[in-house]
Amino acid sequence: MDAQAVSELRSRLESFQQGHLLQFWEQLDDVQKQSLFDDLSSIDLRKVTDYYKRTTRQTGGGGGTERSDESLRPVPDELSGSVSRMKSDEQGHYNTLGLQAISEGKVAALLLAGGQGTRLGVPYPKGMYDVGLLSSKPLYQLQAERILRLQHLAKKQSGVDCTIPWYIMTSEHTKGKTEEFFVQHDHFGLNASDVVIFEQDMLPCFAFDGKIILESTHQVARAPNGNGGLYQALGTHGIVTDMRQRGITCMHVYGVDNILVKVCDPVFIGFCQTKNADCGAKVVKKAFPTEPVGVICQVDNHFEVVEYSEITLQTAEKRRADGQLVYNAGNICNHYFTTDFVESVIDQYEDMLSHHVAKKKIPSVRADGTLYKPSVPNGIKMEKFVFDIFQFSQQFAVLEVLREDEFSPLKNGPSAEKDSPQTCCQALQSMHYRWVLAAGGKFVDGAGSVRPLIPPLSPSARSQSSECCEVSPLVSYAGEGLSEKVAGKSFLMPILFDADGMDLTSGDGVQVKCISNGNGSDRGEPAPKASRLA
Amino acid sequence: MDAQAVSELRSRLESFQQGHLLQFWEQLDDVQKQSLFDDLSSIDLRKVTDYYKRTTRQTGGGGGTERSDESLRPVPDELSGSVSRMKSDEQGHYNTLGLQAISEGKVAALLLAGGQGTRLGVPYPKGMYDVGLLSSKPLYQLQAERILRLQHLAKKQSGVDCTIPWYIMTSEHTKGKTEEFFVQHDHFGLNASDVVIFEQDMLPCFAFDGKIILESTHQVARAPNGNGGLYQALGTHGIVTDMRQRGITCMHVYGVDNILVKVCDPVFIGFCQTKNADCGAKVVKKAFPTEPVGVICQVDNHFEVVEYSEITLQTAEKRRADGQLVYNAGNICNHYFTTDFVESVIDQYEDMLSHHVAKKKIPSVRADGTLYKPSVPNGIKMEKFVFDIFQFSQQFAVLEVLREDEFSPLKNGPSAEKDSPQTCCQALQSMHYRWVLAAGGKFVDGAGSVRPLIPPLSPSARSQSSECCEVSPLVSYAGEGLSEKVAGKSFLMPILFDADGMDLTSGDGVQVKCISNGNGSDRGEPAPKASRLA
Repeated sequence: MDAQAVSELRSRLESFQQGHLLQFWEQLDDVQKQSLFDDLSSIDLRKVTDYYKRTTRQTGGGGGTERSDESLRPVPDELSGSVSRMKSDEQGHYNTLGLQAISEGKVAALLLAGGQGTRLGVPYPKGMYDVGLLSSKPLYQLQAERILRLQHLAKKQSGVDCTIPWYIMTSEHTKGKTEEFFVQHDHFGLNASDVVIFEQDMLPCFAFDGKIILESTHQVARAPNGNGGLYQALGTHGIVTDMRQRGITCMHVYGVDNILVKVCDPVFIGFCQTKNADCGAKVVKKAFPTEPVGVICQVDNHFEVVEYSEITLQTAEKRRADGQLVYNAGNICNHYFTTDFVESVIDQYEDMLSHHVAKKKIPSVRADGTLYKPSVPNGIKMEKFVFDIFQFSQQFAVLEVLREDEFSPLKNGPSAEKDSPQTCCQALQSMHYRWVLAAGGKFVDGAGSVRPLIPPLSPSARSQSSECCEVSPLVSYAGEGLSEKVAGKSFLMPILFDADGMDLTSGDGVQVKCISNGNGSDRGEPAPKASRLA
Repeated sequence: MDAQAVSELRSRLESFQQGHLLQFWEQLDDVQKQSLFDDLSSIDLRKVTDYYKRTTRQTGGGGGTERSDESLRPVPDELSGSVSRMKSDEQGHYNTLGLQAISEGKVAALLLAGGQGTRLGVPYPKGMYDVGLLSSKPLYQLQAERILRLQHLAKKQSGVDCTIPWYIMTSEHTKGKTEEFFVQHDHFGLNASDVVIFEQDMLPCFAFDGKIILESTHQVARAPNGNGGLYQALGTHGIVTDMRQRGITCMHVYGVDNILVKVCDPVFIGFCQTKNADCGAKVVKKAFPTEPVGVICQVDNHFEVVEYSEITLQTAEKRRADGQLVYNAGNICNHYFTTDFVESVIDQYEDMLSHHVAKKKIPSVRADGTLYKPSVPNGIKMEKFVFDIFQFSQQFAVLEVLREDEFSPLKNGPSAEKDSPQTCCQALQSMHYRWVLAAGGKFVDGAGSVRPLIPPLSPSARSQSSECCEVSPLVSYAGEGLSEKVAGKSFLMPILFDADGMDLTSGDGVQVKCISNGNGSDRGEPAPKASRLA
């Protein structure tokens, strides 16, 4: 780095109205100078300032936009399915198709795990978070074990070994820790070579006046470019090439925070393939018209996720003759893409995707060189969204699934009333409880009385931690395979159905087949007998 | 009280196996003796021990029972209506009918407010609780002001003055404080003579072995006899006679804890009258199959609320071809009864209603005379339920309403994740925000930007207390009458639309008609300008 290079950088910056980025230059030591020089040199100024202009022009300076509601249509019936309306043989058919594709090695899982999880408030990736399960399994492990179980089920159906490669998009904030965590846990039983961790890009953050923000005197503030940064990263890191080499024809793309996520759900895969879709989305019904969730709509001749801030109340409240909301397809970041479709996006469309504005509080440096954390938004992050590519789909499909079976995101910390570790824990345990009941098991209380057949799990999960029922994903992916283990038997809670084995004990005159772990004491409960077999 | 009388009491007690109630007799002083003597003499031993036997026989000693699901049917379509399927002119028609009945002085409100609110954790009646509104109005006041507004609307339609008498059933725990509270607040603008406060009965609590529990050496443990104690109390206290004298032909019966309750909703009244119903219920759709809520079903040829603990998972998960749950009519303690029907219940059926068992932790006295608070249930309270009389209805009707508009109960304290003061506060404010939007108003942020048209009220209401919008019930009962006040105008939050007047201020170039109270500072927020007019 010579004076000539610095001078060139300075004039390039100035030509893009970013000369302020060198305002502290004279105060920096040599190491800092080199660091800042490299940092700034790595920025494609034309591109990022262009992004900024395009992004803010669209939204009139960063406010919420409102669509012309006239252009909106709901997703047509012929492209939609619903597990609540599906007969069990139809569901079974899709399941068989999906397992077939998996057994042929055509299906990959693609996890979006680049978010910083600011609202959750932990300094490590969300996937490492344990919401408080009996097993203490973090989200990454639940997903890994679902993949393992699915490989097993596909083999059981087809007779051949198969692999679901797992691609994990991280960011600068999450990559190192995620990699370490997987190594530390021996990839939770998956082959290390089948877990491919890559990184999405970062973009500089801009102040509202269009200036790139410095987070210190010698460092630019950057943020991940949104989960829609996926497509650029898939190209840059040769992920699609890797998929092609493995023979992957389709993938299941999902966010890290949904504890109920059915990774590579064969029903979804079979459904999308039957619809001949290049792009599909799972949705849940909106709980009420103003639920803050994006809705999948038809706009002109393509499909889009219309954000709740873009829609009028009147449109959100529109109902069909049967009373259901017209715009009811709540997007849950749970998608099916063919490899061909993703490749076409990367090759032809990626550059056409514009960024969205996220107003944020961005730690910055003051003119005097001191640092501050703003209490109100002081700038924007520019993000693409993974669903932005729906518009390019030639054949779209939507599968409506049941929220209680498939969607419970971890967004907030333990004190929140919604989308918290407690609500996630409760959602998973409640589903597992229902699995056991549906498979013919019963639950009893300490005195041997049969418990009500509706899960008694309280909304205040904290005070009810002894009422836990957990089924390892290694035992069951979606409730299957439990009846031979539980039918006609009675169980005491807390109970963990683990893959290691089962132990027969008896309690108070009732035959109880109960596997509890020894973690109860962590929750201030008397520790149940640790009878899990090694 | 002479020795003879005590001896007679003793042998009567012994003949009902309740001799233990005098076990501390010799240790009592004269005042305590008299008190216990009076207490025990007031108990109809044959009746209450009969209740105990009947109640526990039914449930096999107090456990949950499970119904034969084969006998269950959903409520037939011809008896059901739904505001989500209703055209606005149909709704308007019912509304007109309901207001007509109100203006003719035929409609009463009947509030069930005898519960102790143990879970909420306050030592006063729930109706006195302020969930944290800008106006600080407690539940009682919200209901009173809805009645006032309704009287006004009925007068506007008919041209004549009218009164909705308000009957409030309290219990020993809530009567005194409720009466004081109403006097203190000048009955919130209602005529004192139109607010009739009466008291439901108490019943002795029983241990699991059938012995009545002593809560001290000289006092029997008693509890209110459930909200179904209403019918007995209506007879005992001459309430129906009072209704007859006032010309009341129908009543709206509801629980105190639902902050959204539309007291005497004219749409509901008009609907039930059109259906020629003697008994009607508002319901909300179950949020998910295992939501712990009772469901209104047809059982043989009558209607019942089937509790969630009485239904199998399989039945709870049954769906119609269109994907909706078959058993979807969630009971929310919101009923319409004709006076004739209630009178027939009191005269003919009240005694046939059996009690339900509620296992409870009942503070008791030990054999050595010391007191203790059990940590596990040690006995039962016997309760009737208000909906137990559905079975006697000759013409039943069900109106499905929208949860977000009509049901948000206060059950738990501030730390709960569900049915807490925060969720109630948020539900009410969110509805009011929607009213303003629907009436053509807009909300802007401090910089004058229009806010998204979906209420931004966060699930963590605590941290977002500046985002409040509240409309006094005196201004609008159900969103009506707002458009002339708000259409085309922009508002800053927090904002309280109060009945006293409106103040025009302007903020940052946007015309803002904003009435904020000065309570913001109670919530740790900078106090907004207090511009409410006196």
